[in-house]
Amino acid sequence: MALSSEQQAEIDLSRAAPTPTLRPTVPALEAMLFQAMPVLDHGFVRVVDYMGDDAAVVQAARVSYGRGTRAANEDRGLIRYLMRHRHSTPFEMCEIKYHVKLPIFVARQWIRHRTANVNEYSARYSILDREFYIPAPEALAAQSDDNRQGRGAVLEGEEATRVLALLREDASRNYDHYAWMLNADDAGRVLDPGRQGLARELARMNLTLNAYTQWYWKTDLHNLLGFLSLRADAHAQHEIRVYADAMLDTVRAWVPHCFEAFSDYRMGAVSLSAQMLDIVKRLLAGDPVEQPGSGLSKREWRELMAMLGRDA
Amino acid sequence: MALSSEQQAEIDLSRAAPTPTLRPTVPALEAMLFQAMPVLDHGFVRVVDYMGDDAAVVQAARVSYGRGTRAANEDRGLIRYLMRHRHSTPFEMCEIKYHVKLPIFVARQWIRHRTANVNEYSARYSILDREFYIPAPEALAAQSDDNRQGRGAVLEGEEATRVLALLREDASRNYDHYAWMLNADDAGRVLDPGRQGLARELARMNLTLNAYTQWYWKTDLHNLLGFLSLRADAHAQHEIRVYADAMLDTVRAWVPHCFEAFSDYRMGAVSLSAQMLDIVKRLLAGDPVEQPGSGLSKREWRELMAMLGRDA
Amino acid sequence: MALSSEQQAEIDLSRAAPTPTLRPTVPALEAMLFQAMPVLDHGFVRVVDYMGDDAAVVQAARVSYGRGTRAANEDRGLIRYLMRHRHSTPFEMCEIKYHVKLPIFVARQWIRHRTANVNEYSARYSILDREFYIPAPEALAAQSDDNRQGRGAVLEGEEATRVLALLREDASRNYDHYAWMLNADDAGRVLDPGRQGLARELARMNLTLNAYTQWYWKTDLHNLLGFLSLRADAHAQHEIRVYADAMLDTVRAWVPHCFEAFSDYRMGAVSLSAQMLDIVKRLLAGDPVEQPGSGLSKREWRELMAMLGRDA
Amino acid sequence: MALSSEQQAEIDLSRAAPTPTLRPTVPALEAMLFQAMPVLDHGFVRVVDYMGDDAAVVQAARVSYGRGTRAANEDRGLIRYLMRHRHSTPFEMCEIKYHVKLPIFVARQWIRHRTANVNEYSARYSILDREFYIPAPEALAAQSDDNRQGRGAVLEGEEATRVLALLREDASRNYDHYAWMLNADDAGRVLDPGRQGLARELARMNLTLNAYTQWYWKTDLHNLLGFLSLRADAHAQHEIRVYADAMLDTVRAWVPHCFEAFSDYRMGAVSLSAQMLDIVKRLLAGDPVEQPGSGLSKREWRELMAMLGRDA
Repeated sequence: MALSSEQQAEIDLSRAAPTPTLRPTVPALEAMLFQAMPVLDHGFVRVVDYMGDDAAVVQAARVSYGRGTRAANEDRGLIRYLMRHRHSTPFEMCEIKYHVKLPIFVARQWIRHRTANVNEYSARYSILDREFYIPAPEALAAQSDDNRQGRGAVLEGEEATRVLALLREDASRNYDHYAWMLNADDAGRVLDPGRQGLARELARMNLTLNAYTQWYWKTDLHNLLGFLSLRADAHAQHEIRVYADAMLDTVRAWVPHCFEAFSDYRMGAVSLSAQMLDIVKRLLAGDPVEQPGSGLSKREWRELMAMLGRDA
Repeated sequence: MALSSEQQAEIDLSRAAPTPTLRPTVPALEAMLFQAMPVLDHGFVRVVDYMGDDAAVVQAARVSYGRGTRAANEDRGLIRYLMRHRHSTPFEMCEIKYHVKLPIFVARQWIRHRTANVNEYSARYSILDREFYIPAPEALAAQSDDNRQGRGAVLEGEEATRVLALLREDASRNYDHYAWMLNADDAGRVLDPGRQGLARELARMNLTLNAYTQWYWKTDLHNLLGFLSLRADAHAQHEIRVYADAMLDTVRAWVPHCFEAFSDYRMGAVSLSAQMLDIVKRLLAGDPVEQPGSGLSKREWRELMAMLGRDA
Repeated sequence: MALSSEQQAEIDLSRAAPTPTLRPTVPALEAMLFQAMPVLDHGFVRVVDYMGDDAAVVQAARVSYGRGTRAANEDRGLIRYLMRHRHSTPFEMCEIKYHVKLPIFVARQWIRHRTANVNEYSARYSILDREFYIPAPEALAAQSDDNRQGRGAVLEGEEATRVLALLREDASRNYDHYAWMLNADDAGRVLDPGRQGLARELARMNLTLNAYTQWYWKTDLHNLLGFLSLRADAHAQHEIRVYADAMLDTVRAWVPHCFEAFSDYRMGAVSLSAQMLDIVKRLLAGDPVEQPGSGLSKREWRELMAMLGRDA
Repeated sequence: MALSSEQQAEIDLSRAAPTPTLRPTVPALEAMLFQAMPVLDHGFVRVVDYMGDDAAVVQAARVSYGRGTRAANEDRGLIRYLMRHRHSTPFEMCEIKYHVKLPIFVARQWIRHRTANVNEYSARYSILDREFYIPAPEALAAQSDDNRQGRGAVLEGEEATRVLALLREDASRNYDHYAWMLNADDAGRVLDPGRQGLARELARMNLTLNAYTQWYWKTDLHNLLGFLSLRADAHAQHEIRVYADAMLDTVRAWVPHCFEAFSDYRMGAVSLSAQMLDIVKRLLAGDPVEQPGSGLSKREWRELMAMLGRDA
């Protein structure tokens, strides 16, 4: 299970004791606060703190535009305007902090988003738990033939069975050897008083990349949306996308107007190059356009036709 | 006065209505929330939101060090340890948002701290208020003779009178001309229907650098302490230092253990170079050391003697 | 004139003495190196150093994608692919450093781009030059009636004459008083030995926002393109756009493939929201769509029709 | 060996062909350019590009301080002043780019330094090499008894032999299974045409944390020195410290004045808290001070006595 009983007890305690505050609060997010949303086989995401709400975005935009915006727009319209025109600074006025448990190979992808604050569990100081990610059978994708980064069909039969067995055996054996090298169990108790035990900072190198780690990860709403636009996307690796999907649920609860604008103008949006826009105009004018002579490469042409829901 | 009556009404409204939250709250900071602390003649600083407390720093450090820290340290000791050894990431887990009204020449210095989120009142969209910073007589420092960036004695007599008059007259006249060029008063009402009025984004260039602007400024505790260590320092310009001093009061209320550790290990600390440390050791051993032959330049020698409270 | 004779002599010296290097060099950019491109009435931009070229972007992408990309793509195609799909990190592998002279109100807009390194001339330590930006008559735009941030027609006649006179007189008078308060001329010579002179860090507040400052500004190609996409845009204020335009010329010389891809996929591109894309599809299918019932607000409808070159 | 023959051929080619440039060049760093400095058993660091030199730091500082610094200081003195007083922005005006091959557990520590540009070899797209870090016998440290993050004595005898065997066997077996799951060898050739092969992005999770990865890593001199002050420190893990040591050699060649100032004022420096400084003053005055009553905790007292080279 994702959370230790100790952690669960701490959560129950925190949830039992609301205190009054003058800060903006969001009841829908308060209802989720501290609670772990399970992700993958042993992971989770949980919101542990937040600052601001939809109104905080509006308030910041109104400072920037001053008297300008006072009369005119209602909040939802202003937020949609800001999102559409990529006025990003007002979205930076909201902040959220997550506690995440995730496989190391996912953490390595995630950490590339640099504009965030992170405190990760350190295997230099402490002993990692005996937990590894093993894909569910339906997530056991074959390598795509035509797309180097992609997944093809799901592996089946004997090959699938063997892969799962290998992943399980290798992770377990390596963890057993990690513990032997440490000369300690996962509670830190010495196994054999006749041995010294290898330094933690060295023993950890025997672990596999599907071992779980955990961290506190804090960022502002603008950068969170940037993260989600990449990681909740269809091209993202499944194992990080499930985290992004869980986080999208927290954004919907937290800042519903921002979430809606983000869905319309970022997640669902497409970008047309100068040449692509020109072709769309010609098509609308009834002009028959073909890829040869269009000014687009074959690859771009296919991308455009896919956007427009046409045969390439 | 710093705040408009509209702004004051908004503050009163916000302060009247506490709501329950499960997030960590800090009563001492709640007591200050939204309220403007006056700074300079027309400026202010006020806290408009915050995330986290002393315990959030500890919690983040404990995730990093894992089981390691569980038993041992109490919170204050751990925070002091983190500050002393410059473990900065746990301090990034707290966030604070200020609303600040400040002269433009102060804003230009402040903005050089890049790791922060900012929404500034835009003179491209809106009309600035008719407010300028005029130093109090006791802040009217002469140029230092021996230190290019420093202030010397306070100007007095006729020279002081003339300087204050010039600052006042030039700022006022320029603002009057700004309004004339805009063809609008500071509420945006057209002055002369027979004229078009210059674009706001152009007219603003006639304002002086002591005109007041305002912004929302949000940062994490680690970067806030970095800002304060430079701007609440004796070498900082008086006009930004008074803002930093007011913000120090909010930090003391918000995260008292962090504030104490910061005071001891950052604000009150000195750094000794390898050579300086060597000289201290020799002095402690009773070895008579003089600047010539010490390996320090005259300037460094003076700096060291000043630290140690000795004659150079 | 933009450059002092001292600065020009330094430039001539630098340009006279090429040295051999093993680093990638770009002859077209070397030809521009150090030379000031005049901007506005007294400003300039000049490239003072650079790192990398088109090939450095490709090289970085190939490390990321490893053997994957070795055979397949030629450089131009790969760069276009990276730009189209917003793979930004390879573009961060090129770096450029500019020396810029610009009015303070432009500098205040520019500095909001935080991911850059900056060293600005300090009016706390030094005395600013007697130079102010005065718009050319054809840049003297009226405030737009229907767009708060926009410019309308050019001011003419008496109003224009008076505006120009005011800008000139106020900047000059304020500079004269600045010098009087400093008790120094712009070479730092004392004017009246019987007076002390106000501290530089205070006297500067009497200057107007059209006074010129200067800085070294260094950033990577990805962030530079982000800056240019906003500041070379039709919505940018004319006075910053002319700097961005000059910098675009340096990018074209430096990394021609990146420049071309940027022009096609960023500067010339449009973004369609989910709803807008749906309407384009319906229009292509011959479905008559009107704003009412389209799911777009009137404002968005106008924006879409403008993109497609249709009447709203 | 660290570099493939292909990579070595590329290096030889690059080194054969100097081109003229007007940019500042540093012959001592040119002599090292592109060449791999071996680190650990299969890793390396090599400089692949750089921008600026000692003079570029001085030039930037002189823009900031303007005429102020013109006459007075020679370069070395100015650089030492900047370093001593933590004026960091002039050091940001130099930039360097490294190509590094390093074990994944080292990369995870390294990447926490966020202010850098990174392009890492992607195991999502490509197949990792069959190379793992196995510590040299003298680096096989036991866990420290009194310091959770520290290393104790070197493991010896049977325990050491067994640890090395386990590390070697587990990494090899896991790589063999990785290749089997991929159904490809490390050149990407299909092993068994009758199987599909697991997606690369999944198979990589079976690798151990001592597998080697590689990246391009680019940063400015200020942030590089921050990295080195932490990672070339005695408390850093040996396996990252050896990289930092190699990079220190490149800094010494590149910017000798900055390197010297960094050695004196950062690497060799100590920080004294307000209370510690007070005790030093009392000791200098001949006042006998003991830990009880000193205001320092036992831990701080030990730290201070260690700095001063005294018995605690």
